[in-house]
Parts: sequence; structure tokens; C-alpha cells
Amino acid sequence: MAFPAWLKKIQAKENIVISTRVRLARNVKTYRFPHAMEKKEREKFLGEVESFMRAHEGKPLVMFNRLRDLDNVYRGVLAERGLVHMESAREPDFTGLATGPGQTTSVIINEEDHFRLQVIHEGLNLEKSLKDAQLLDELVSRGFDLASHREFGFLTACPTNVGTGLRASVMLHLPALTLTRGIVQVLQAVLHMGLAVRGFYGEGTELRSVFFQVSNQMTLGRTEEEIIRHLLGVTRQIVERENEARQKLLKDDPKLLEDKIGRAVGIVSRCRLLGFEEALDLLSTLRLGSELGLLKNLPRAILNELLLQIQPAHLQLLTKKTLGGKEEYLRRAEWVQKRLKGCLPGG
Amino acid sequence: MAFPAWLKKIQAKENIVISTRVRLARNVKTYRFPHAMEKKEREKFLGEVESFMRAHEGKPLVMFNRLRDLDNVYRGVLAERGLVHMESAREPDFTGLATGPGQTTSVIINEEDHFRLQVIHEGLNLEKSLKDAQLLDELVSRGFDLASHREFGFLTACPTNVGTGLRASVMLHLPALTLTRGIVQVLQAVLHMGLAVRGFYGEGTELRSVFFQVSNQMTLGRTEEEIIRHLLGVTRQIVERENEARQKLLKDDPKLLEDKIGRAVGIVSRCRLLGFEEALDLLSTLRLGSELGLLKNLPRAILNELLLQIQPAHLQLLTKKTLGGKEEYLRRAEWVQKRLKGCLPGG
Repeated sequence: MAFPAWLKKIQAKENIVISTRVRLARNVKTYRFPHAMEKKEREKFLGEVESFMRAHEGKPLVMFNRLRDLDNVYRGVLAERGLVHMESAREPDFTGLATGPGQTTSVIINEEDHFRLQVIHEGLNLEKSLKDAQLLDELVSRGFDLASHREFGFLTACPTNVGTGLRASVMLHLPALTLTRGIVQVLQAVLHMGLAVRGFYGEGTELRSVFFQVSNQMTLGRTEEEIIRHLLGVTRQIVERENEARQKLLKDDPKLLEDKIGRAVGIVSRCRLLGFEEALDLLSTLRLGSELGLLKNLPRAILNELLLQIQPAHLQLLTKKTLGGKEEYLRRAEWVQKRLKGCLPGG
Repeated sequence: MAFPAWLKKIQAKENIVISTRVRLARNVKTYRFPHAMEKKEREKFLGEVESFMRAHEGKPLVMFNRLRDLDNVYRGVLAERGLVHMESAREPDFTGLATGPGQTTSVIINEEDHFRLQVIHEGLNLEKSLKDAQLLDELVSRGFDLASHREFGFLTACPTNVGTGLRASVMLHLPALTLTRGIVQVLQAVLHMGLAVRGFYGEGTELRSVFFQVSNQMTLGRTEEEIIRHLLGVTRQIVERENEARQKLLKDDPKLLEDKIGRAVGIVSRCRLLGFEEALDLLSTLRLGSELGLLKNLPRAILNELLLQIQPAHLQLLTKKTLGGKEEYLRRAEWVQKRLKGCLPGG
């Protein structure tokens, strides 16, 4: 299995921003929105898109698949990577996915909108992500007459996306702000500035871990560049707060940090059963330890990969075993230990 | 610092019974009970006992001390070992302690009763403990006219001790019954059979850990031997239940056990801060792992010693540092790691 390219760039400039995601919602004039389409219509549209994508393969998308042609586990993997909706993974019949090299760019067809153009990059990479998304936009514009309104901009199935159709988000890792409880104030400020905050999995997921997705709420009345600039500015401020909180922890209570990181090393190395949320917490703590210089030899690339690999479908694909219940916990512990072998003290 | 002799016998017959304790409460006719004595009277009685003990040193008691002559930390150590009451450690003025070799036998003077004769042995050793306590009883009987009543037996400061003055107890380690929740039923049965259950520290302490002290309630209307036989019978039944629960866990859910034990190894090896109650839990799990054969090279003698050494005064004595707050947590982690060095996998 190839890993998404954004995971492979181990020379991240930003410690705290795990990844950047930009997506544009687009629809064509000649079809009703997907939720209003008959099966036959959806199939017809999907066929048109397939012909177009196959004709344009390689620039910048290299692969087109109908989701129903992919196996169940791999569809789950795509959903866990945020490339398709979990619902499409379960009911794949009229949905298609085109992807670029390393799955950095992708177009999902017939989900909520006719097209969702998406770009994911490692670290804080908003401008580049927008640029890459605009390349995808140019591509589909060449093949399809896109629905737009002179005054509002692009029309979308859900009114919250009308206008630019742009949702830009950054995945932030904020363990020190969480430990020092500064996180509440920071998140309140983020909301106050018109941005949305979501959990690790994105929309609808809880804020249980120390990973937070921050994204724009407004898609209307601002240009793409303004939206991106605003998110970038806020993100840089959050990163600064997190860095301050880390310095404060290091100064005020280094033993507490060492204890937390030592325990994470001990548990990760010795557990036999490991749930997803605990794994997420442990990876966060190891990452913090690595970024604070307390853990050497711990490549960020492995930590990034593990953030995806601890999810059930990824685990199932990686271990080639049907998982479920305790088996999943067992395989997760084994997999994490295998990947971190030699990277942790005493390991 | 010498360790209590009962800790050193590493060839225990019983895994599950950590130690046995027998004490006899005795008072002399010619003095009021300690709580009713004037300071002068207490001092006078203490002087009489000192003269007697010094005259009889070596048979079976080898050392006599007024608690006020011992330093504060060492008095705390004695309290943590259950040789004196925590209150006497804090207010030592009119209390004395005579101890035999290895502190297996001891006599505390001027606590609740004039004499408390006590014997502690490793493992399940009720008969031997009673016999040793009776030797102490013979000793003090030779020097003092003990208060007794023809019908009731020995008279004591608290009516719950009248009669034999005997309190026999066993410290049980019941992790599997706790994990499988069979513990509730077992403890109910124990109470139903007229025995008392207490936590790790004895009287008044909560049942927070998986260590339980079971002791007789009744001191009246039964002979010492009957009390001991009853407690022995019940203890053997509890031990059987715990062994059954361990076998069941091993059979039904070995991965859960391995996970629990692996995590304990990981945390013990890597933490930097360690509280007392967590240390108690971790030592329990390591002990279980050792007794189930999952951890090799883990001498029970070290685990037994650590059960005492993780307590604050012991730690203070061992590390020769004034403890308090986080410092205590730090030293506890360091001490446990030092003692277990080379005894744990990956260590």
C-alpha cells in the first residue's frame, strides 16, 4: 500500500500543524444536485466524468475509480484518509474518485456535490494547497459547465458552501495548550474569529483528543485568497500560543512532562491491547516528546503514518486480517510496536 | 537499614497471603488504662517496663526504645511497618517499643493498652505467629501482674478486645478476584463469617487497592486457637477463590492479563513521578505477573520490600532526602526503578 505523499515529507517546517486540507465544492449546470438525482442520472453523470477523467489522466489526476469497484476495506481506508465520506464507503454505488500522485489531490464525484476537489499537504501549506485545488478547478471547468450565480458565486448542494465553495482546514496538534488548559480560551477566540473547530475525524466528531481541525465557516463574500489568509493568520497565532505553552511547561514542570512522555513510551512499548483513542493520545505524547527533544530517533514520518494506520480499515489492510472487537486492539498494539521498533528508548 | 525478617524469607509457600500478623492486648493491674493515666504515671510505668525489658534483653526481645529517643523519620518507618500507631509516631512522649530480631516480634508500651504484643510473619503463618505471641505473653507475665477477669479473660482499654485480647490478621493479595468482580461476594461472605476486612494500612483505611487485611472481630468466648483456626479456614477458602479466578482469567482472557501486566512493566520502567496508591497497584500487577509465570526474574523478596519502601517515611529514610509533594513522587519512581533494575523485561 502506498502512503499519501503528504505523509512522506519528513522535513516539516511546522511542528504543530500536522496537515493542511483545501477543498472546493463544484456542481455542473446540466444535472440536479446529487441528493435530488435518480439512480440513472447519477450513473449517467458518473459515466461522463469517467470518460473525461480517462481522457485527461496524468494531468493532474492519474487514476479514476468507481468506488463500487474497490474492495470494502480499501474504501474504508479512503474514508479514514478523508478522501471519501464514510457513507460513500458503505454505499459506493454511484460515487467515483479520481486521485493524483500520492493522493495529494483528489476529486470525489457524486457525493454531496457533483465534484469535491480536494488537496492535502503535510504541515502548514495553505497557499500551495489552494493553488493545487485551483488546478483541479481548471481541469473540471474545461470539461463541465459549472453552476454559478453572477452575484453569489458557485452554487452548491448545501447553502453553507455557496460562493467560493472553499473549505480550508488545518489539523493542529495542541498537547501543551490542552495540558495547561489554555486550550479553552484559544478555541473560544478561534470561534469568535468566525472559524470552526472540529475533532480528529473532522465534521461531527468530538474534541476528545489533542488534535483539532480549524477551518473557515464563511464561503461567501470573501475571495479564496482572503479566506486562506485569514485562516493562516489565526493558525500562526495558535501555533505561537502552543509553543509558548510548551516552553512554559518545560520551564515550570519538566518532570511532569518527562513523566507523561516516559509513561507513553512504556505503555506503547509494552501494551498488548490498544484502542484507537488511547493510541491517538499516546502518539500525541510521543510526538510532543520528540518535538521537545526528549525522544531522539523518532522520525516524524512514522508518527504521521501511524496517525492514519491506527484506524480500523488501515489496520485491516496492513495486517491482512479481518478485525473486530479485541482482535483490532491486539493488531493495533502489534502494528504500533512494529513501526516504532528501535525508535523508542529501551525498545 | 535492616529489613523486617518476615520480608526476607523468599521461599513463601503461599503466593496470595503476603503476611500474617498476631497481636495480644495486655494491661497491668496496678495502673489505670493509658488513656486515663496522668503523664507522670505513664512515665513511671514506662520506666518500670524499660528496667524489665533491659533485664530480659535477648529473650525474645533484643532492643528497647522510648519512641521520643528515635528520630522523626524512623518513627514514621515504624508506623508504616505497623509496629507503632501513626499517632505515637507523631506524639512519642510516653510510648516505648521493644523489638525482637528482625522486628518479627515487638511489644509496644503505653499505646491504647499498656502492652501490645505483636508478631508478623511472611505468608500464611497463623499458628507460628500465635505461638511467638504467646512467648511474648509469657515474658510480660513474668514481670507484671496482668489485669484479667475470671469470667471474661484479659481486660483491655477498648471492650472490643476483652477476653483473649487477640487480633489475628492476614494480608491478602486478591487481584484476580478484583478484576473478575468476584471480590464483592467473597468479602460479603467473610463479613458474614464474623471476620473484618480492612485496606492495606489496616484499621480505618479504605479498600482502594487489591490488598485486603482479614482479621477476627470476636475476642471473647473463644480460645486463641479457635480464633486462629477459624481465620485460617476462611483464609484458605479465599486463597482458593483467588486461585480459581486467576485460572479463569488465564483461560478466558490471557491477552487482557498480558496487556495489564505489560502496561505495568512499561509504566514502572518509564515513569518519572509515582504516587503511593499507583505504586501499590503496579506492584500488585507485577506480583500477579510473576506468580502467573509471565514475568521471570522478579524476586518476590524485592516486591515484598517495595510494598513497605514505597511509603513516605521509608522513602525518606532510604533516599536520605526530605520529601514532600512532587519530590516524594520523584523519589518513589527512582527508588522503585532502582530496586527493579534487571528484574523486568527490557529493563
